[in-house]
Amino acid sequence: MVSRGKFITLEGVEGVGKSTNLQFITQWLNDRKIPFVQTREPGGTPLAEQLRALLLTRREEVVDPMAELLMVFAARAQHLAQVIVPALQRGDWVVCDRFTDATYAYQGGGRQLDRTRIEQLEQAVQGDLRPDKVLLLDLDPETGLRRAGRKGVADRFESEHLAFFHRVRSAYHARAQAFPGRYAIVDASQPLEQVQRALGQELAHLL
Amino acid sequence: MVSRGKFITLEGVEGVGKSTNLQFITQWLNDRKIPFVQTREPGGTPLAEQLRALLLTRREEVVDPMAELLMVFAARAQHLAQVIVPALQRGDWVVCDRFTDATYAYQGGGRQLDRTRIEQLEQAVQGDLRPDKVLLLDLDPETGLRRAGRKGVADRFESEHLAFFHRVRSAYHARAQAFPGRYAIVDASQPLEQVQRALGQELAHLL
Repeated sequence: MVSRGKFITLEGVEGVGKSTNLQFITQWLNDRKIPFVQTREPGGTPLAEQLRALLLTRREEVVDPMAELLMVFAARAQHLAQVIVPALQRGDWVVCDRFTDATYAYQGGGRQLDRTRIEQLEQAVQGDLRPDKVLLLDLDPETGLRRAGRKGVADRFESEHLAFFHRVRSAYHARAQAFPGRYAIVDASQPLEQVQRALGQELAHLL
Repeated sequence: MVSRGKFITLEGVEGVGKSTNLQFITQWLNDRKIPFVQTREPGGTPLAEQLRALLLTRREEVVDPMAELLMVFAARAQHLAQVIVPALQRGDWVVCDRFTDATYAYQGGGRQLDRTRIEQLEQAVQGDLRPDKVLLLDLDPETGLRRAGRKGVADRFESEHLAFFHRVRSAYHARAQAFPGRYAIVDASQPLEQVQRALGQELAHLL
């Protein structure tokens, strides 16, 4: 995969503006005639989207954290095999709404699962494949949840308590600190124009 | 878990007569007034049964072997947390139609996935919990598939080729050889009465 495309992921808690900024990123790529695939996790293939639905459904049954983690990586294995790896190999860029950093943040930070479990699964499922750039839209969870709350009924993750999202954010920060070259933290409390200027600069670095 | 119940699993390829012999086993336990839970894998909880449905559905999309393996263990983690471990802890026996030996047989043997992957997941999901007795109904796949074929439309596993089921059977045999104390191989080509006499003897040893 010498001349493979770039692999960009967008991360952040609920309400940071991922949808709006994904549109900005894909417009930026279109403007430069860069071929790309836009996708999301969990999901991105019919089977992986069915797993996403199982993960997000609010249910009576308590979901075991390890079961949740394995479902996330099952969806990821399918997504990588069917979509992400073929796209990168043919030279397309891949823009993915959440990826493994979200697993470290939500299942590792939020659910407090042992990080070595996540690392083992990451290695087993991805081998050496990692995003070229993780764009973290950073925002305090209070503001994010207030914004997200306007959008309707909360799913199984959105209905977690504030402390959960504080742990998620801390885990994202820890990842950014551990992988400073791969991560770009963008302050999502700024006006949208400034957020997108920052995103554009990060994308330009990848060219 | 000093005085926990016994954990019995029934294994075998398609068409060995698992349903009939499960009935025999549960009748045997009822006759002795032994409290038990009868369950199955993949499945055994609402979420795990939904995962089972995703696993068995025949689909256009090629299912990545690692995705399949992770879905199997996700269902297992949920099943253990919600059903199997609580039952054993309160002293019930658990009779399970297939368990991790089926993963070694179908995903390891059939799909030829690296066995160390399965061992890592087994350890991560089960810790030290293993069945007290694996009852393997053994039959050559030609006979089994001929019997199973009478039952209607084949699912995603049943529609595999004969070579797949020969690998499944070989993997079961390898497991039985590696864990002779835990495994009992019962020749399922015998008349049902003899099969059930053999099963009854194995159960009696557990008392």
